[in-house]
Amino acid sequence: MDGPVVTPHIAVTTGPLPASRKVYVEGERVRVPCREISLTDGSTFAVYDPSGPYTDAAAAIDIEAGMPRLREPWIAARGDSEPYDGRPVADADNGFVAGDRLVPGFPLRHRPRRALAGQAVTQLAYARAGIITPEMEYVAIRENVGLDRRRADARRDGEAWGAAIPDEITPEFVRDEVARGRAIIPCNINHPEVEPMIIGRNFLVKINANIGNSAVTSSVGEEVDKMVWAIRWGSDTVMDLSTGRNIHNIRDWILRNAPVPIGTVPIYQALEKVGGVAEDLTWEIFRDTLIEQCEQGVDYFTIHAGVRLAYVPLTARRITGIVSRGGSILAKWCLAHHRENFLYTHFRDICEILRAYDVSFSLGDGLRPGCIADANDEAQFAELTTLGELTRIAWEHDVQVMIEGPGHVPMHKIKVNMDKQLAICGEAPFYTLGPLTTDIAPGYDHITSGIGAAMIGWFGTAMLCYVTPKEHLGLPDRDDVKAGVITYKIAAHAADLAKGHPAAQARDDALSRARFEFRWQDQFNLSLDPDTAKAFHDETLPKDAHKVAHFCSMCGPKFCSMKITQEVRDYAASGMAQMSDAFRAAGGEIYLSAAEVAKANSALGDGGGEGRR
Amino acid sequence: MDGPVVTPHIAVTTGPLPASRKVYVEGERVRVPCREISLTDGSTFAVYDPSGPYTDAAAAIDIEAGMPRLREPWIAARGDSEPYDGRPVADADNGFVAGDRLVPGFPLRHRPRRALAGQAVTQLAYARAGIITPEMEYVAIRENVGLDRRRADARRDGEAWGAAIPDEITPEFVRDEVARGRAIIPCNINHPEVEPMIIGRNFLVKINANIGNSAVTSSVGEEVDKMVWAIRWGSDTVMDLSTGRNIHNIRDWILRNAPVPIGTVPIYQALEKVGGVAEDLTWEIFRDTLIEQCEQGVDYFTIHAGVRLAYVPLTARRITGIVSRGGSILAKWCLAHHRENFLYTHFRDICEILRAYDVSFSLGDGLRPGCIADANDEAQFAELTTLGELTRIAWEHDVQVMIEGPGHVPMHKIKVNMDKQLAICGEAPFYTLGPLTTDIAPGYDHITSGIGAAMIGWFGTAMLCYVTPKEHLGLPDRDDVKAGVITYKIAAHAADLAKGHPAAQARDDALSRARFEFRWQDQFNLSLDPDTAKAFHDETLPKDAHKVAHFCSMCGPKFCSMKITQEVRDYAASGMAQMSDAFRAAGGEIYLSAAEVAKANSALGDGGGEGRR
Repeated sequence: MDGPVVTPHIAVTTGPLPASRKVYVEGERVRVPCREISLTDGSTFAVYDPSGPYTDAAAAIDIEAGMPRLREPWIAARGDSEPYDGRPVADADNGFVAGDRLVPGFPLRHRPRRALAGQAVTQLAYARAGIITPEMEYVAIRENVGLDRRRADARRDGEAWGAAIPDEITPEFVRDEVARGRAIIPCNINHPEVEPMIIGRNFLVKINANIGNSAVTSSVGEEVDKMVWAIRWGSDTVMDLSTGRNIHNIRDWILRNAPVPIGTVPIYQALEKVGGVAEDLTWEIFRDTLIEQCEQGVDYFTIHAGVRLAYVPLTARRITGIVSRGGSILAKWCLAHHRENFLYTHFRDICEILRAYDVSFSLGDGLRPGCIADANDEAQFAELTTLGELTRIAWEHDVQVMIEGPGHVPMHKIKVNMDKQLAICGEAPFYTLGPLTTDIAPGYDHITSGIGAAMIGWFGTAMLCYVTPKEHLGLPDRDDVKAGVITYKIAAHAADLAKGHPAAQARDDALSRARFEFRWQDQFNLSLDPDTAKAFHDETLPKDAHKVAHFCSMCGPKFCSMKITQEVRDYAASGMAQMSDAFRAAGGEIYLSAAEVAKANSALGDGGGEGRR
Repeated sequence: MDGPVVTPHIAVTTGPLPASRKVYVEGERVRVPCREISLTDGSTFAVYDPSGPYTDAAAAIDIEAGMPRLREPWIAARGDSEPYDGRPVADADNGFVAGDRLVPGFPLRHRPRRALAGQAVTQLAYARAGIITPEMEYVAIRENVGLDRRRADARRDGEAWGAAIPDEITPEFVRDEVARGRAIIPCNINHPEVEPMIIGRNFLVKINANIGNSAVTSSVGEEVDKMVWAIRWGSDTVMDLSTGRNIHNIRDWILRNAPVPIGTVPIYQALEKVGGVAEDLTWEIFRDTLIEQCEQGVDYFTIHAGVRLAYVPLTARRITGIVSRGGSILAKWCLAHHRENFLYTHFRDICEILRAYDVSFSLGDGLRPGCIADANDEAQFAELTTLGELTRIAWEHDVQVMIEGPGHVPMHKIKVNMDKQLAICGEAPFYTLGPLTTDIAPGYDHITSGIGAAMIGWFGTAMLCYVTPKEHLGLPDRDDVKAGVITYKIAAHAADLAKGHPAAQARDDALSRARFEFRWQDQFNLSLDPDTAKAFHDETLPKDAHKVAHFCSMCGPKFCSMKITQEVRDYAASGMAQMSDAFRAAGGEIYLSAAEVAKANSALGDGGGEGRR
């Protein structure tokens, strides 16, 4: 029995970030948004921007209408898919909730598309066929945002650990990386609202934010708002990990309003459909759930097909056993039936479905370690071996694939995770959760994991799944989502810098110049979170006049090291040579030449300005 | 003109942390405090505890009386120092402030001690003479706290990069490390309140918190409270970086109430004495300031003797020039007089003073990089070369020494900093500020730097100087101090884990076991910040009943992966062998043996459970 349909009131945060406006870079077939920050010296600084129309002052946002369907003409023009009626929504899809407790469906229904018989509509299939899609052109332009600010004299600097990031990303480079399976562009043909983005280790490191309700808490308005909030601060994709009621309808609202790829874990919904009893899961119910979500437009699925029956006993002596929800559901199913994981046995069937919609695999690490003691154990690496096998099967079917990674890993055990993943999975993109580098700081696991995320991002992980301060303790609210996203933007950017991404350091340099020149507003506006930077400054020096002050609260006006440095610089420029002559004439030898210093340094090992090799 | 003396009202946070009590480990000559956490299973877990009597429920805290003078009898018994009248406090010491604006001095005056003529009263001198001091015995016991919880079956695990942490710390090991200069025990004979602690890469990684007023803001009450607050959350030392008025008297209040070593940057006060005009600094004024602070009991001094005149021009083309306050003051002095830095030319004189009180050097990196672009440049490494030279001179004088390090350094340039420091400075302890791994996140620099701190701690840095969220923006308040301390405790512990400290993982294991067994209170109480962990849990599941619930808010009762794992475990224990037999009889082969999995893993590179080498 349904009650009256009341569209939920959904409020999201809109409008540009401080001193920013949305601008579009025109390509041949595409126009690619980026965020242009206005600086007080009259120049601008462009940054990569996944936030969609929500931060475009010129865009009319209507949550009930959804985002513009940007890719619809591109998809239709390919002529390899067709609209069809799609699967009717069943009561089970929303957990049998009814009446007032049912979240109404999204008001507009778009007929889903699927591939014509025998066709593969995946970016991988196109790439292998030598086709540069508009999606590929789009991401090429997007990855180059900011390259114009690269210093003319900048050497490529960094230690890329085998990654090969070119000076400039061309559409052909994108195509080639996708064709090799080394990068993916998650973009279901039923999610035409998505602004294409790419995940691969020869591109900017990306981040993902998890949202989603549970049986205990959360509502549709909160989830849509969290999605918009997460991308406002820079999340590149969003996973909807809902496990409670109304799961189908909430997902619809999220997808129709999401300009970023949306990922899910379909087994969560399948389990809801069988009343939460893992043993009752069947391939048929799971298959039906996959099609349901393919038609809705989910861009990537976490599939725990590597949790093989044989590996489950390997977890028995762990301190924290199996901590992946999906992993534990499937482990229970395997044991209850004493049969091989049906996701493994039906993997080729799954490939056929995903190929018809261009849904990407995110092969789940259901046996990832849940604590430091369990890191890098047999169970974990046994599963990884299977994920490598499944990667090749997905590629046989032209399905895009990335691989999920841990978890809880101490620093000295991080790199081997990356190295094994590259070797076993043929360089398919790695997508890790942190990893958390210690277990002892619940409440701060964005930080324990941000450390591991920065490191594994440097080593080659293509996308970092955020962890919020609420990890292990509760569901993240807006503040937690923001803290998680900013922390992971830090980790991703630190990784880009260390890998030697050609444009990454331009932002650090611009901000540091602003800092040195006491352009406070520019320092705030170039930062990842201008609101917080400004608020912190206001706490000590609240007056507007202090935003142009040539000192700061830490040292006060008399003690400012930056002010003194400017004097040093002026002094050096004007009087140094002359003073030096006078001093030398008096018998002293104060100035080492740059060459002398370099010599002294090189005698001690690596060159002063070089990263280690 | 002095006004009436009013003792400032100073309130500090006292009392034990949740479920904790102060216990003392008895040694031959010492009793060493640690914090014992009571777990709900009736067992206890002891952790290293620098918080002093403030967290001892049995201690009577009287800020106006100061801490117990624990080391007074040890110092007197050595017979190599004597009390004397000491230098009278001058108006200049408090920045010529008078009347109501003068912070009253600490109510009790203890006569200072100094070495008898020709004597060295340093721990280094004793160590070289083969003497195991009570201080050495104290730190040996302290470093072993928690070793009893080490799992009997625990392999030593980790990659120590050349550090050699023994299975157990003996007093003789401490003596030997101090004698080699590889560790320091900062403990001025005029700071007998200090509970001895050790800084060296073969010991637990330590952290420092900076406090201090500036000309713009802050008061004595706030500073003492911040010191107590910082050590409550685990700071091992505290630096008082005050630069404003009342600097002498505020320092007195801090020292008399500090159970941890206190560091300062004496040039800040010297500059106050000359009205903030760097050019007016003289050796005589600086020397007088050193003695003033030696008599008060400061345990280590940052001395920027490596900022040589010849290196200053090397900073002229940097984006952020010289960002160290001390560094820029001395650079300005050098240029103004066109003379060599007087701290360099008088370095042996400084050694003589420090030797008479056992004040340790913290050789300042006045030319550290202030942004990513300036990292690892000529100026930085030229100064480091000089710090190596000065280290050897300090050692000639039996003075303990550690070396300060950067700053802003991208991840790929961190390790070379550690390697050079070890090579140049003869393994003297490294003490780094972060480093910050990107410049683009003001407001979050505890995180940008926590990443670098964890890494450089792993590589061998002995003490990590915290950075708070207010870095670059304002002076830290209590919340910022706590955020900085907890972040750095995370970094230090992650480093201990990665180095393979024998006891470090015991806490991770205990907490993870509690997590897996849904002992929520134990999970909170074993964490670095029980208050925050509990508060976060309360936000979603506030009822007390939920603290014993066998599920959490993230997944709800039906979906709990940990609950399912327990079922898997029970199942595996009971039915596995039997099921396996049945399955094999039916022709299947589901179970890989552990040996088969290991073989599959080893074919792919490093062993599954091994860290990289």
